[in-house]
Amino acid sequence: MIIVLRSDATEKQVKHIIDRVKKLGLKPMVSRGIERTIIGVIGEEDVLRVQPLEVFPGVDRVMPVLAPYKLVSREFKSEKTVVSVGGVKIGAKKVAVMAGPCSIESYDQLFKIAKAVKKAGASLLRGGAFKPRTSPYAFQGLGEEGLKYLHQAGKEVGMPVVTELMDTRDLGAVERYADMIQIGARNMQNFDLLKEVGLSKKPVLLKRGMMSTIKEWLMSAEYILANGNFNVVLCERGIRTFEDATRFTLDLSAVPMVKKLSHLPVIADPSHATGKWGLVGPMAKAAVACGSDGLIIEVHTNPEEAFSDGTQSLVPSRFGTMMKELKKVAKSVGRDI
Amino acid sequence: MIIVLRSDATEKQVKHIIDRVKKLGLKPMVSRGIERTIIGVIGEEDVLRVQPLEVFPGVDRVMPVLAPYKLVSREFKSEKTVVSVGGVKIGAKKVAVMAGPCSIESYDQLFKIAKAVKKAGASLLRGGAFKPRTSPYAFQGLGEEGLKYLHQAGKEVGMPVVTELMDTRDLGAVERYADMIQIGARNMQNFDLLKEVGLSKKPVLLKRGMMSTIKEWLMSAEYILANGNFNVVLCERGIRTFEDATRFTLDLSAVPMVKKLSHLPVIADPSHATGKWGLVGPMAKAAVACGSDGLIIEVHTNPEEAFSDGTQSLVPSRFGTMMKELKKVAKSVGRDI
Amino acid sequence: MIIVLRSDATEKQVKHIIDRVKKLGLKPMVSRGIERTIIGVIGEEDVLRVQPLEVFPGVDRVMPVLAPYKLVSREFKSEKTVVSVGGVKIGAKKVAVMAGPCSIESYDQLFKIAKAVKKAGASLLRGGAFKPRTSPYAFQGLGEEGLKYLHQAGKEVGMPVVTELMDTRDLGAVERYADMIQIGARNMQNFDLLKEVGLSKKPVLLKRGMMSTIKEWLMSAEYILANGNFNVVLCERGIRTFEDATRFTLDLSAVPMVKKLSHLPVIADPSHATGKWGLVGPMAKAAVACGSDGLIIEVHTNPEEAFSDGTQSLVPSRFGTMMKELKKVAKSVGRDI
Amino acid sequence: MIIVLRSDATEKQVKHIIDRVKKLGLKPMVSRGIERTIIGVIGEEDVLRVQPLEVFPGVDRVMPVLAPYKLVSREFKSEKTVVSVGGVKIGAKKVAVMAGPCSIESYDQLFKIAKAVKKAGASLLRGGAFKPRTSPYAFQGLGEEGLKYLHQAGKEVGMPVVTELMDTRDLGAVERYADMIQIGARNMQNFDLLKEVGLSKKPVLLKRGMMSTIKEWLMSAEYILANGNFNVVLCERGIRTFEDATRFTLDLSAVPMVKKLSHLPVIADPSHATGKWGLVGPMAKAAVACGSDGLIIEVHTNPEEAFSDGTQSLVPSRFGTMMKELKKVAKSVGRDI
Repeated sequence: MIIVLRSDATEKQVKHIIDRVKKLGLKPMVSRGIERTIIGVIGEEDVLRVQPLEVFPGVDRVMPVLAPYKLVSREFKSEKTVVSVGGVKIGAKKVAVMAGPCSIESYDQLFKIAKAVKKAGASLLRGGAFKPRTSPYAFQGLGEEGLKYLHQAGKEVGMPVVTELMDTRDLGAVERYADMIQIGARNMQNFDLLKEVGLSKKPVLLKRGMMSTIKEWLMSAEYILANGNFNVVLCERGIRTFEDATRFTLDLSAVPMVKKLSHLPVIADPSHATGKWGLVGPMAKAAVACGSDGLIIEVHTNPEEAFSDGTQSLVPSRFGTMMKELKKVAKSVGRDI
Repeated sequence: MIIVLRSDATEKQVKHIIDRVKKLGLKPMVSRGIERTIIGVIGEEDVLRVQPLEVFPGVDRVMPVLAPYKLVSREFKSEKTVVSVGGVKIGAKKVAVMAGPCSIESYDQLFKIAKAVKKAGASLLRGGAFKPRTSPYAFQGLGEEGLKYLHQAGKEVGMPVVTELMDTRDLGAVERYADMIQIGARNMQNFDLLKEVGLSKKPVLLKRGMMSTIKEWLMSAEYILANGNFNVVLCERGIRTFEDATRFTLDLSAVPMVKKLSHLPVIADPSHATGKWGLVGPMAKAAVACGSDGLIIEVHTNPEEAFSDGTQSLVPSRFGTMMKELKKVAKSVGRDI
Repeated sequence: MIIVLRSDATEKQVKHIIDRVKKLGLKPMVSRGIERTIIGVIGEEDVLRVQPLEVFPGVDRVMPVLAPYKLVSREFKSEKTVVSVGGVKIGAKKVAVMAGPCSIESYDQLFKIAKAVKKAGASLLRGGAFKPRTSPYAFQGLGEEGLKYLHQAGKEVGMPVVTELMDTRDLGAVERYADMIQIGARNMQNFDLLKEVGLSKKPVLLKRGMMSTIKEWLMSAEYILANGNFNVVLCERGIRTFEDATRFTLDLSAVPMVKKLSHLPVIADPSHATGKWGLVGPMAKAAVACGSDGLIIEVHTNPEEAFSDGTQSLVPSRFGTMMKELKKVAKSVGRDI
Repeated sequence: MIIVLRSDATEKQVKHIIDRVKKLGLKPMVSRGIERTIIGVIGEEDVLRVQPLEVFPGVDRVMPVLAPYKLVSREFKSEKTVVSVGGVKIGAKKVAVMAGPCSIESYDQLFKIAKAVKKAGASLLRGGAFKPRTSPYAFQGLGEEGLKYLHQAGKEVGMPVVTELMDTRDLGAVERYADMIQIGARNMQNFDLLKEVGLSKKPVLLKRGMMSTIKEWLMSAEYILANGNFNVVLCERGIRTFEDATRFTLDLSAVPMVKKLSHLPVIADPSHATGKWGLVGPMAKAAVACGSDGLIIEVHTNPEEAFSDGTQSLVPSRFGTMMKELKKVAKSVGRDI
C-alpha cells in the first residue's frame, strides 16, 4: 500500500501516520521528497483495510498495491504530465527535440553544433561530459570541464541543456550546470542513483535499459517519483535483440504502450537505437507518427572524427532537412515540432 | 558466383555453360524458373575469373558472391520493384492495405468483413484457410473450403486475395483460389516450400521469421527469386525478444534497412506484432511514416468470438477511423493510401 | 478436453463418441494414429462434465485441457518413456550418443567416420541428406543418394541411423532408409510435417526451434503424439539470443525442465549450439551432468574441408577422448555411456 | 596501446612516460592502482611504434590494442589466476562454493544458515545487505546493520564473507565488513563503481549483466584490473532471453569460453539464473562438469517466508544432498569440492 501525503503535511502528521502503521505490525518505508512525502507499507496489508487512513490529517490519497508501479500509473494521475525543462515543455502539443553531440569534445565543437541545431529548430541541447564507455581505454568524457562548456553553450544560444549523470557523487556538479539530468540505459537499475535524482529538483530523462521490460522501466521511474521528483521523462532508446543489422532494436511499440500505462511523457532516441545515421530520419518520423513526445538526436559537424558514436551522428545539414520533414509528419498526427 | 541467364536462353546454351563450369572443376547449381534460369557456382571461383562468361550466348549477367544475397540486392537491380497482385500495385506511391480476418470462419463472416474493409479503403483481402497453430487441438482452418470462400468473397467485393500456404502439397489449391501466396513466419526457412513458390507464377508475400535476422530473411527471398519468381513482397511482422508487454517486437527499423539493401517492396503487420488492437493504429502510422509500402491488418466484426487472434483484431469502424488517419500520415511522407 | 481411445476401440465405438460430442454442440477433432485414435474436443466443455465419457466403450481416458500439452505431459504418463531406435534405447540408464558428419558427402567419407565413431562408443549414426541451408547457393545435400549411403554405412558398421526430413513429400524415402526421423529446428513448427511423422511408425527426433519456448516445443511434440506416434525424443540444440560469441546459446536448463514436465527423453546437441569444436566437450559433459538422455555430435575426418559446419566438428580422435571423459561424468550421475 | 608499469616504477618515471606520450600528440589515460600504474594511450598509435617504450625505465610491458580487453586476456597472462578470499582459493583444484541467504534478515536467521552451509561443505558465506530491488516498495536490505551481522556470522562459523556493493559511497563500509565485494548484474556497467573497486584491495566478484555479451563482461573486468585490482572472479548468472520457463537462461557455454579467453576464475549462479530451486541441483552439476571454478547458491531455512527470492532457495538439507552429489561430479572432471 502507498500512502501519498499532501504537500502541506506537517512533520507531526507524518510521524503520527508512521506510528499507526508500525502499531499495526507493518513496516513503513518513508520517502521524503522535496515536494511531498510518500509512505510505502510492507507487510500483511489486510489490517490496514479497516483503518480509514484517507481521513488522517496530512494524507492526500491511499493506493492499493495491485499494479507494481503506483505513482507513474494512469490510475494515479489520469491527465498527461507536462514536464518543463528551463521553459521548454515536454509532453505538450509541440514535439520537443533534443540535439547535440554524443560527447562534448571542446567548447568550439559544442558551440558550433549548438548554433546549428538551434537554427534547425531543436529545443534542447544535449551533450555528454561523463561518458559510460565499454572500454576503460576509451574517451571517458571531459567531466566537470565539459559541464561548464555545456552550460555556457546553452546560455549562449538560448537552449536548456541535458546531460548524463553516472555517479551519485557527481549529482551536485550536474545540478549546477544542467537543466535536465539524464540517467543512461546502463544505469536504469542503479537504484541508489535513482533515489538521489528523486531527491533533486531537476527534471530527469530516464532512458530504458537495453534489456529492460517496460514494466521494469516504469518501476525505475517509480523510484524517482517515490522520492518526490515527479518531473520524469521516459526515453525509448532501443533494446538488445538477436538482430545485428542495427545497433539495437528501437521498440517503438513501447511509445503508445507507455502512454497507455503512464501519465509521464515519452520520447525516442533513434540515433543510439539504430547506430546508423541513414536510419535516424525514417525512425524519427515513425516515432513522431506513433505519438512520441520528443526526440533526442545526435548531431556532429564532423562525424568521422567524433570521439564517440560518429557513425550514428547526423551532420547539421541533414538534421535540418530531417526537421523540415518531421514538421509535416507531426502536423499529420495533430502535433507541432 | 551467380550466372543469370537471359529469358530467351536456349536449352543448348544452358547445357553449354554447365559443361564449361564442370570442366573447370566447379559445381553448378541450376535453378530453372518459369521466366529465367539461374546457375549458382560452388567451388574455387578464381578459375572463373579468367573466363569471360558474360560473353557466352544466353548469359545476361554474372555476379560475384560477395554479399550473401544476390538477386534481391540493390546491386543487382537498383530501381525499386513494383509487384502487381491482381492489378493492385505494391511498392508504388500508393500504400497497399491488406485487411481481413485472421481465420476464415464462414462465407458470411468473411463477406461481411470484406465489404467493410473494401469500403474503408483496403486494397486486398486477407484470410487464413490453412492455419499454423501452436496446439494440435486448436482450430486448424477450413482448408480448401476456406479458399473457395476467400476466392468468392474477393470476386464479390472486387479485391484480390492473399492467403497462407503451409505445405508444398497444397500449392495447387492455393494457386487456384488466391492472387498472392503468403509464406508465414514459421515457414520462412521451410526451404522446400520456398523453392516451390519460387516456381509458381503467383506473387509471394514472405513474412519475416520471428527469430530471423534481416540477412536470413533476404536469403529466404533469394530462394524464391533464384527459382525464377521475382514477384516477392517482404513483410515485417515482429521479432521475438525478452519484452512480453507486446506479443512480438515490431522491428520497424527493418523497413528502411530492407529498402536500402533490396529492391523488393516491404510492408508491416502491426496486428500480429503487437497482439493488441489498441496499438495497431499507432504502429500502422509509424510503419507508413518510415517508408512501409503497405500494411496487413486483422479486422473482425466480432473479435471476442473470433476463432483466432481476437485480441489483436480491429472492428470495422476502428479500421475505418485508422484508414482516415493513415491518409494524412501517408501524405506527410509523399505517399497516398 | 482430450479423449484417448483404447488401442482396440472399434470404428463403431469411435463414431458413437463423435456423434455424442457433436450432439452436445461441440467440435470433435479426430486424430487417427497407427496405434490409437485421439479425439480433441473444442467448444464449451462444461456440457461434457456431466457426461460420463470415461465409461463409454472404447474410451481409455479423458483429460481436461488445463495444461496446453496433454499426451506429452507427466500427468498423462508418469513413468519415463524409453524410445527404441533399431534396438538402441534412448531414455534408459545408458546415455545414447549419436555421431556422424553434418552432411553426407560421399560413401567413403561417411563410412570412414561411421567406423571411427562406432569404435569410440557412439550408438547411432547421424548424417544429413536433405540439408536446410540459409543460402540457395550452398550445398543442399545429396538427397536420396545420401540416404542410401547412410543406410548402407549403418548396416556395415552395425548402427541404426538418423537423418533429417524437411518436406512431407520425402517421408517415404526417409522411412525406407532411416531408423529415426529428425525434424530440424527450422521445421519445429512446420505443422503439416509434424502431422505426417505423427502417422509414421518410425521414432522421431524433434529438435527445439531456435526461437521456441519450451512450451511451444512440447506443443510440437504433442502434434506428433496426437497423431499416434508416441516414440518422440526431444533435442535441445541452442536458442538464439543476443550473445554472439557462440553460434546459439545452449539452454541446458531446458533438460531438467523438460524432464519434469514430460515423460519423453531429451538429448542435447552441443555441436550446433556452440558452433565451436573447442566447446563441444565441456558442454557435452555439462549436458550429461544435468540429466541429458543422449547427445548428438558432429564428427568429421577433415573438418576444414567439410561441405558444412566444419568449425563445429570434432575429428575422430578428439571424439574418442571426449567419450572417455564422458564415461566418468555419466558414472558420477548414475548413468552409463 | 596499454603501457603496464612495473610495481616499483617511481613517480618521476611515470611522469616521464606521460610527457613522451603527450609530446607525440597522444592522450595518456593514467590508472593508478594500489599495486601498479597502467597507462592507456589514445590516438594515432602509429607514432608509438617507432618509440621503444619497453626500454623506458619503469615500464613492465607494452601491449598493442588488438583485442578490446588486455589485462584480463590469456595473452597478457597465460597461467590461470587463483584469487584468495580470506584464505579460500578460487580458481584452484577445489571448486569453491559460496552459500547463504539472498537477503540478510536478522542475525539469527543468518547464523542458522551459516552453520548449516558450513557443515555441508560451503567455503564462503554470502548474504545481501544492500539489495537491488526492481520496486522501491520492496525490502531494500538492512544496510550497514546487515553488514555487521554478516561479518559476525562469518567469524563465528569460520567462513570468509561476500556481499554486494551498489553505490560508491558504501565502499568503505563494505570493505570494513566483507572479505569479497560483489558487483551485481545490474551494476556490471556502472563504470564509476568498477573504477572504485579497482582501487580497493579486496577481491571482487563480478557478475555478468543479464544483457551483456561475454566481451562486454570481460571489458568490465578490465576496468577493475586497469585500476590496479587483479583479484577478480567472474560469475555467470543467466542472461535474459525470450524463454520464460526459467527466470533467466544460464549460459553455461560462457564458462569454457571465458576460460579460453581469460586467466580469471569463473563461477556460476544456478539459483538466480533458473529462479527455481528444483533446477539448482542439475545446473550446479552441469556447471562443475563444464569447468566452473565455483558456485554461488541461495540457501534459506524457511524459503516460503524469505524476504526475497524464496522460490529459488534450497533448504539446508537439500543443499547438503546436492553437495554430496557435486563431489562425485567434481571428481569425475578432476576437481575436488
